[in-house]
Amino acid sequence: MHVHITGRLLICCPDRPGIVAGVSQFLFSHGANILDASQHSTDPREGLFFMRMVFHLENTGMSRQQLEDDFREKVALPRQMEWRIDYTDHRKRMAIMVSRYDHCLMELLLRWRSGELEVDIPLVISNHEQLRKLTADFDIPFHYLPVDAINKQEQEQRTIALLQEHQTDFIVLARYMQILSPDFVSVFPGRIINIHHSFLPAFAGARPYLNAYTRGVKLIGATAHYVTDDLDEGPIIEQDVARVSHKHSVGDLVLLGQDIERQVLTRAVKAHIEDRVIVHGNKTIVF
Amino acid sequence: MHVHITGRLLICCPDRPGIVAGVSQFLFSHGANILDASQHSTDPREGLFFMRMVFHLENTGMSRQQLEDDFREKVALPRQMEWRIDYTDHRKRMAIMVSRYDHCLMELLLRWRSGELEVDIPLVISNHEQLRKLTADFDIPFHYLPVDAINKQEQEQRTIALLQEHQTDFIVLARYMQILSPDFVSVFPGRIINIHHSFLPAFAGARPYLNAYTRGVKLIGATAHYVTDDLDEGPIIEQDVARVSHKHSVGDLVLLGQDIERQVLTRAVKAHIEDRVIVHGNKTIVF
Amino acid sequence: MHVHITGRLLICCPDRPGIVAGVSQFLFSHGANILDASQHSTDPREGLFFMRMVFHLENTGMSRQQLEDDFREKVALPRQMEWRIDYTDHRKRMAIMVSRYDHCLMELLLRWRSGELEVDIPLVISNHEQLRKLTADFDIPFHYLPVDAINKQEQEQRTIALLQEHQTDFIVLARYMQILSPDFVSVFPGRIINIHHSFLPAFAGARPYLNAYTRGVKLIGATAHYVTDDLDEGPIIEQDVARVSHKHSVGDLVLLGQDIERQVLTRAVKAHIEDRVIVHGNKTIVF
Amino acid sequence: MHVHITGRLLICCPDRPGIVAGVSQFLFSHGANILDASQHSTDPREGLFFMRMVFHLENTGMSRQQLEDDFREKVALPRQMEWRIDYTDHRKRMAIMVSRYDHCLMELLLRWRSGELEVDIPLVISNHEQLRKLTADFDIPFHYLPVDAINKQEQEQRTIALLQEHQTDFIVLARYMQILSPDFVSVFPGRIINIHHSFLPAFAGARPYLNAYTRGVKLIGATAHYVTDDLDEGPIIEQDVARVSHKHSVGDLVLLGQDIERQVLTRAVKAHIEDRVIVHGNKTIVF
Repeated sequence: MHVHITGRLLICCPDRPGIVAGVSQFLFSHGANILDASQHSTDPREGLFFMRMVFHLENTGMSRQQLEDDFREKVALPRQMEWRIDYTDHRKRMAIMVSRYDHCLMELLLRWRSGELEVDIPLVISNHEQLRKLTADFDIPFHYLPVDAINKQEQEQRTIALLQEHQTDFIVLARYMQILSPDFVSVFPGRIINIHHSFLPAFAGARPYLNAYTRGVKLIGATAHYVTDDLDEGPIIEQDVARVSHKHSVGDLVLLGQDIERQVLTRAVKAHIEDRVIVHGNKTIVF
Repeated sequence: MHVHITGRLLICCPDRPGIVAGVSQFLFSHGANILDASQHSTDPREGLFFMRMVFHLENTGMSRQQLEDDFREKVALPRQMEWRIDYTDHRKRMAIMVSRYDHCLMELLLRWRSGELEVDIPLVISNHEQLRKLTADFDIPFHYLPVDAINKQEQEQRTIALLQEHQTDFIVLARYMQILSPDFVSVFPGRIINIHHSFLPAFAGARPYLNAYTRGVKLIGATAHYVTDDLDEGPIIEQDVARVSHKHSVGDLVLLGQDIERQVLTRAVKAHIEDRVIVHGNKTIVF
Repeated sequence: MHVHITGRLLICCPDRPGIVAGVSQFLFSHGANILDASQHSTDPREGLFFMRMVFHLENTGMSRQQLEDDFREKVALPRQMEWRIDYTDHRKRMAIMVSRYDHCLMELLLRWRSGELEVDIPLVISNHEQLRKLTADFDIPFHYLPVDAINKQEQEQRTIALLQEHQTDFIVLARYMQILSPDFVSVFPGRIINIHHSFLPAFAGARPYLNAYTRGVKLIGATAHYVTDDLDEGPIIEQDVARVSHKHSVGDLVLLGQDIERQVLTRAVKAHIEDRVIVHGNKTIVF
Repeated sequence: MHVHITGRLLICCPDRPGIVAGVSQFLFSHGANILDASQHSTDPREGLFFMRMVFHLENTGMSRQQLEDDFREKVALPRQMEWRIDYTDHRKRMAIMVSRYDHCLMELLLRWRSGELEVDIPLVISNHEQLRKLTADFDIPFHYLPVDAINKQEQEQRTIALLQEHQTDFIVLARYMQILSPDFVSVFPGRIINIHHSFLPAFAGARPYLNAYTRGVKLIGATAHYVTDDLDEGPIIEQDVARVSHKHSVGDLVLLGQDIERQVLTRAVKAHIEDRVIVHGNKTIVF
């Protein structure tokens, strides 16, 4: 059987006529058949253009290096594009960091095992021992790196080293209950996905379910976002909510919220894996 | 045909054994057949019990006054109850206050005309002229009371007088773009329902759609709540959300949001009309 | 101010490499700037390609006729395309047919008046008198064409004549309770949108709410579809549902269902107006 | 610490005045404090009354046997009630039957381990070997009972024996791909919960996702119902749907549907465990 390689091209450039034509003409003339295309223009004052193109690459004998060199010179430079191409035969390497809650970790591992999340998971890192067995059930190495006030900086350095050693492409904080330092974040810019257990910007910070209970909201939510130096302020990838009522105790909200957290996190992670997300300022475009 | 009167009893009292038994026994012995009952106990530290009972009243010859006097003496006083009974043959009188947006007003009037909202609407008050014709199409008196920095206090007094003259039971702010003074609010405590065009507590205050756009949220919402002196902080009755994406401009959010606003407001108004809402502290119990 | 004309190109053709490139190159070289593009490939056995491209047309002095002649010759014929271009300065002419329920009609008229539905509405046709006043409130001509067993064929011919006389582009059956004959349907192929008050294919035919009640489903729904000769079997454009329980009587289902009907119908009509829908066999692609 | 036993009383009887009063008075006088009550009256022609009461039982020295004997004599018999009381210190015993799909099984086991499903799971039975390891990870016995055309009857008898030997209270078919015979069903009337992978009554029978794809629906769903002799026709406990589009292949529908299946099944199982479901004819009342 003839095997196609699929490429995913993401671009951002000043909006002006001819970009779709130029890019699609380039791909066609290089033996790439466009499977899917999505685009977005910001409002005219900002004047930016974003596009995602998915294509099959025929065996034309041309190397990817050649394709990309050619693209840079003929298409990207003249249009001041930021761009990148990912190929589906490179499986991204996703590290997961957790604390004690198992629902998000379990959801990710299950969907990974079923083939729905097409990534490699080289390691799980935790500041607690609880989820070691669960991780082992999936034959994934588990690293226990406890954190306290004294060793925090040191453990972060160890964590970074471990992540780099495993060639981690991106990190999922699947209810990791430690705040990462700016130093840590700067090593993986736009490559750390967190799940916050509220509908941000409502109930940022600690104890969102308690605060939601106290305020008496009728919906609770969860938010998956990229981590930046501003806690709970990074670009939002995905959100969802569930209906609650006066009958729900704080404990009920926690339980109900876990269902939303794992769904929202999974959808965000999937979008990231499939190169559907472009960060623009503090917002995301999710194609 | 035999016509039943339906009563709706709402109670709040210290939680202790025997309340359901006591109340239902009382109603039964007074010829009232219970049609529906809902109850809620707060957590034990607070120790409060809430109940709504809907009942048919047989023609036993006993007046409502007698029934209520009896209830007060035999059931309510011994248990330190707060309580009230409303009867469906008393249609509540609902005033609507609007500014320029027609979607919430229209939704309320349509559902009123279809019989879904079982209220009388003695008047619509607005600080703008725009919605006069629409209101007239439904044969409802329209009062134009423009507000500016100078006349605000005076116009509020006129509004209060008008509302009282029409024996208004409660007021719906169907996108009324003026902040009511504490004086105004104090005349109608727990009897003013506002629709705020965000998922509170996110995006309280002015321009919620613009702020939602800027933050890049993936859901927008609306919140119906009772008005208190703290702007956008009153007890929430109902909320809902709709999905949005990077494709939506601020204008799109406004348009999409209007659908949620009118649905949320209608559900809240309906719950209020049917005596389903009990305010407790800054939260609501919606049976 | 410089006014752009927006065009919307819809195409269907055998799937093979170079279509996006060819079409976008053509548009670019004819002074058209692509604003939005969506595409869909069916599975390889069927091998079809669908695309919608929205573009601004610069004032290049080239007439639309020239553009389309050129497109036909250079792009469409070599690729065996079916295609059409609509322009936003041609407002579609939408006729509405109703019986006695007002909720769908009202929703359409409100959204038309607010500018959300960018169409002209030359007439409303009904087999009952009830909705004449409502229609008149919106200054739209109302035609009363009662239908009975004897005059049905004759009235259909009158209806067709009326629709043609008003240069109707498409027809919305906003709860029109008569079955249209194949003759009627054949005059407006793919141009009649119906709202069915169930989640098709469940509860096709008459009395869907009663049947939903009898079966004890926990969700009720509505379906907007193009009308074909097979009753309730035409291509589905949009569907949605709402949650119900044992507490809901058939009457409650009817009331609740009306909310879904009007939302689903409006979304379908909007998609049709914006040339987002391509019918393919008995299914739709909604871009 | 003082430990309360919680009882759950379910009743069904002819609707007439005084039932709530009678039952609540009885419970109160027997030292039971009502925590929650829900009731439902069918329409007057049918004239039935259903109620669920949850109560704490004080240590009055009265045995449950006495309580129930007393209730039968004083409350139930005079009102022709069908009734039962379950106590939370009796954990129900839930057997799970599966074939090859793991998503529903996994969901149940996870929520059981987290304490959300308060049952014992004495065994998992399967006609395939695939899910043995997963079941073992949760320390639950796994029984492999392969079924073919010849041994079907015999294996059913073994299954029944196994279920009875483990004192199974109810059975969950978590995507068990065999049709149970009427003989089997008759042993566990109203005690077998199945998940069907469509929004019934749409797409009953085999291959619902393929049929949904072919029909071009815009939502897919799942239905949890009690098993009766009529395949896919039993009383519906819970349903839900998810949005799909022309972009989804049959495989995508399967994947997306699995999320709905496991949520719907879990909610149904939870309602059953908490004695919230009363079957009435071919419908359910879910309190």
